[in-house]
Amino acid sequence: MKRNLFEELKTYGESDFYPFHMPGHKRNPDSGFLPEMYKIDITEIDGFDNLHHAEGIIKNAQEKAASLYHSKETFYLINGSTVGILTSIAALSDRGKKLIMARNCHKAVYHGAFLNQLETEYIYPKMIEEFGISDGITAQQVEDKIQEIILREGISDEQAGKLIAGIVVTSPTYDGILSDVNSIVKIAHNYGIPVIVDQAHGAHFGFHSAFPENAVSDGADLVIHSTHKTLPAPTQTALLHYNSLLVSLETVKKYLRIYQSSSPSYVLMAGIDSCMDFVKREGQERLEQLLISRKELSERSKELKKIKIYPSMLERGINGHDISKIFFQGTEEPGRLLISVRGSGFTGQQLYDVLRETYHLQMEMCASDYVIAILSMMDRKEGFDRLWKALSETDKLLTNTEKNTKEEKTQFPEYCHFQPDAVLKISDAYMAEEESVPLREAKGRIVSEFVNLYPPGIPLLVPGEKIDDKMIPMIEAYLDNGYAVQGIERDGAKKEYCLKVIRQRDISN
Amino acid sequence: MKRNLFEELKTYGESDFYPFHMPGHKRNPDSGFLPEMYKIDITEIDGFDNLHHAEGIIKNAQEKAASLYHSKETFYLINGSTVGILTSIAALSDRGKKLIMARNCHKAVYHGAFLNQLETEYIYPKMIEEFGISDGITAQQVEDKIQEIILREGISDEQAGKLIAGIVVTSPTYDGILSDVNSIVKIAHNYGIPVIVDQAHGAHFGFHSAFPENAVSDGADLVIHSTHKTLPAPTQTALLHYNSLLVSLETVKKYLRIYQSSSPSYVLMAGIDSCMDFVKREGQERLEQLLISRKELSERSKELKKIKIYPSMLERGINGHDISKIFFQGTEEPGRLLISVRGSGFTGQQLYDVLRETYHLQMEMCASDYVIAILSMMDRKEGFDRLWKALSETDKLLTNTEKNTKEEKTQFPEYCHFQPDAVLKISDAYMAEEESVPLREAKGRIVSEFVNLYPPGIPLLVPGEKIDDKMIPMIEAYLDNGYAVQGIERDGAKKEYCLKVIRQRDISN
Repeated sequence: MKRNLFEELKTYGESDFYPFHMPGHKRNPDSGFLPEMYKIDITEIDGFDNLHHAEGIIKNAQEKAASLYHSKETFYLINGSTVGILTSIAALSDRGKKLIMARNCHKAVYHGAFLNQLETEYIYPKMIEEFGISDGITAQQVEDKIQEIILREGISDEQAGKLIAGIVVTSPTYDGILSDVNSIVKIAHNYGIPVIVDQAHGAHFGFHSAFPENAVSDGADLVIHSTHKTLPAPTQTALLHYNSLLVSLETVKKYLRIYQSSSPSYVLMAGIDSCMDFVKREGQERLEQLLISRKELSERSKELKKIKIYPSMLERGINGHDISKIFFQGTEEPGRLLISVRGSGFTGQQLYDVLRETYHLQMEMCASDYVIAILSMMDRKEGFDRLWKALSETDKLLTNTEKNTKEEKTQFPEYCHFQPDAVLKISDAYMAEEESVPLREAKGRIVSEFVNLYPPGIPLLVPGEKIDDKMIPMIEAYLDNGYAVQGIERDGAKKEYCLKVIRQRDISN
Repeated sequence: MKRNLFEELKTYGESDFYPFHMPGHKRNPDSGFLPEMYKIDITEIDGFDNLHHAEGIIKNAQEKAASLYHSKETFYLINGSTVGILTSIAALSDRGKKLIMARNCHKAVYHGAFLNQLETEYIYPKMIEEFGISDGITAQQVEDKIQEIILREGISDEQAGKLIAGIVVTSPTYDGILSDVNSIVKIAHNYGIPVIVDQAHGAHFGFHSAFPENAVSDGADLVIHSTHKTLPAPTQTALLHYNSLLVSLETVKKYLRIYQSSSPSYVLMAGIDSCMDFVKREGQERLEQLLISRKELSERSKELKKIKIYPSMLERGINGHDISKIFFQGTEEPGRLLISVRGSGFTGQQLYDVLRETYHLQMEMCASDYVIAILSMMDRKEGFDRLWKALSETDKLLTNTEKNTKEEKTQFPEYCHFQPDAVLKISDAYMAEEESVPLREAKGRIVSEFVNLYPPGIPLLVPGEKIDDKMIPMIEAYLDNGYAVQGIERDGAKKEYCLKVIRQRDISN
């Protein structure tokens, strides 16, 4: 095996070469910050290629990643999946003026629509009622949405392929729920429409038969994988895979050059390369270990009375092989652990707090009545054992104190039950003149800022959407229960919740 | 002093908290990549704030940086100065449709113009003939350019303030040459035009009286500092300072949220914070040490017969205090060392290669007949001693073998002597349908791709510019002498130099 970027950088860092170049730390440990990291933190010096015009070691590294994911071309991203999404949307924006997307896409997708003045056409995912989470989108929903646009605009199928710039599918969602990418791609391609798959949370797909195929194998035109989310790679690293007859490769490259730093971090790039080698070497075996731990936890969790674990493909007996043939809607991938307290008397936030404060288990996020744990091939048995102890003890507590907690129970309306009226295009609303108004007086106003529940960073309200009276109590409920709602601030002397809306006089113009 | 982000992360990394969250490496050292770094590489968990909606530890860190640079607001950038430039240009793009900029700006400025469909109005910096480098731009050139636009468009001064979205000034340049930011800002503000200063290479300004003031103190609306370039901070880190009555702060924030990863690296952020503390604590003293080393090198270099060092403010006897009162055109800041071989028989590339191969001294870059060394407060005496040894020996070699080398000498026309005809707006040319043509047959064609000499990443040709017959031999000379020219590829069976131009049939349309 050839030496990877990390190994080459280490050798260079240990050489007697004196740096009269960036970065300014000069590998000098005196500043006290991570000397081990500074040793390999260089700039584009001889022999170390250039991310933006890769011809040597970075080109090889990208090709290695491409081969691992069975992609024609793969690009390293050092500005996260965010830049992969922005680039992908920009690259197809000259194809048409509409973008079909699920309403629970990550905010970066909305930003892409904004930057390219695209009209968003939303698919509203169905609810999985038992757990209060959004399902993936179905191939039928995509077909229906395309036909709806065709009917509404009075155009032919072929014209639809030119009006609709592309379709963005998030699979898996933050909750780990899959969409049938394979079938969606087939339908989209029938109309000549490219599909971007935001598979940020599925960079570990395709490396073990009990996990889903990756979206490259499913035929998507552009696929984004966050290496840092579920693989051993540094935060802010990701991959963009290109396999398209509908989108120009040159345009993709141009936007990557625009949106990514011209001083990309070699530490981040070496982290990706090191990760790819590790996954190739140990990925399958480590995922197998993860499945054993998860299976054990699932088995044990059958004892629980109040706390439920969402059954993944694994617990449903669907292995990776079958799912590539017949897709089961509402399926969760086994790397995501959704722990539900629905109906238990606890909110998601309360479970999250107990796990954190009492057991020092830091979850990824909490929603209204569940928490999400991210599992990865780097998890250790210790983590699962501690989690089981915490869940079984908390479950007992909940069972014993049922009456007490029930009184405190808060019911959240779920955001995906709402379909706010989009009055203006995002690009017409986001930079409009705005003013701050109290949330409780905001009914009927048009928002000029994203209002996101964070995590997962999915917008409750998108610029251009009108606030109706059902939304106000929903947002208040999140805020009152300690959830982070971005775009809402405590303003003014009274410190009441406020949000940004388009100035009245601007609307009348 | 409060504990900084780095210290807080270290404490957390050493705690018994088990991570059921991103990143997927789970602080597990098994993957073999920088365990010391992975220990502090977290996501937005409780207590660690959120870069995109900073309210806690990141807000405090940003305020500390603001106070150090005397700025009203300062933002951490984890996608390099690139994202600071893109954000700044986007934030003022609704003010007008023209952007005044020096033709030797970094490519990110062109990208900003492209993304916002701005018409670029170039100021061509004068040449400093003795060294073959571009001077800074003058306040008079800015005034002249504004007046030229007023005359050409037949508009009033006030209308000019609305037609011209802003002015971008690069100070210092990659070569370390300063522009009179203070005077330029005064002129621009007379017309109500905001000024962006790309001070990527001057993050160390303002911390020692023998260095220039930083552009925030000079009154610029938006200032970008690459912390990684000249300070001890990780590659890809930078700062954006906001101090403007003409540009909306909210718009700046919105674009930062769009262009920067929603999973910003805490390692990079901690690197900035750690750097700010270090600069505050030791910056002045270490810059003083640097000046002593540089002074010694300059003194010694008077012995050299063939190699010349560009005299900085220091050698000219201009200290930081004076330069803030009277600006001396053509002044270099003392943190940049420009070593010229003009007329010596060596090309810049040859000196660069000798320093690298014989002496293991890695320079930042080479141009036609000079090399650039980046100095920083982290340089060690060892580096200067080795550099002096290398320069004195090479100078002797050049003196003794004068005849031989003279024959091999290559003369480069300098890019800033060219003023290619801009036929199309960048946004009309960059994404147009293109084709690849041999460089030697490209006369009269309009380029669709940037052709950059890298480093420094300044475009020789910008999309929309027409290739004339003087440019072709210039680009060939760079290529033949081993310089990296991005945007030129060896294509086809003959492996000849090719570049991307707009398809003929597209132009006739």
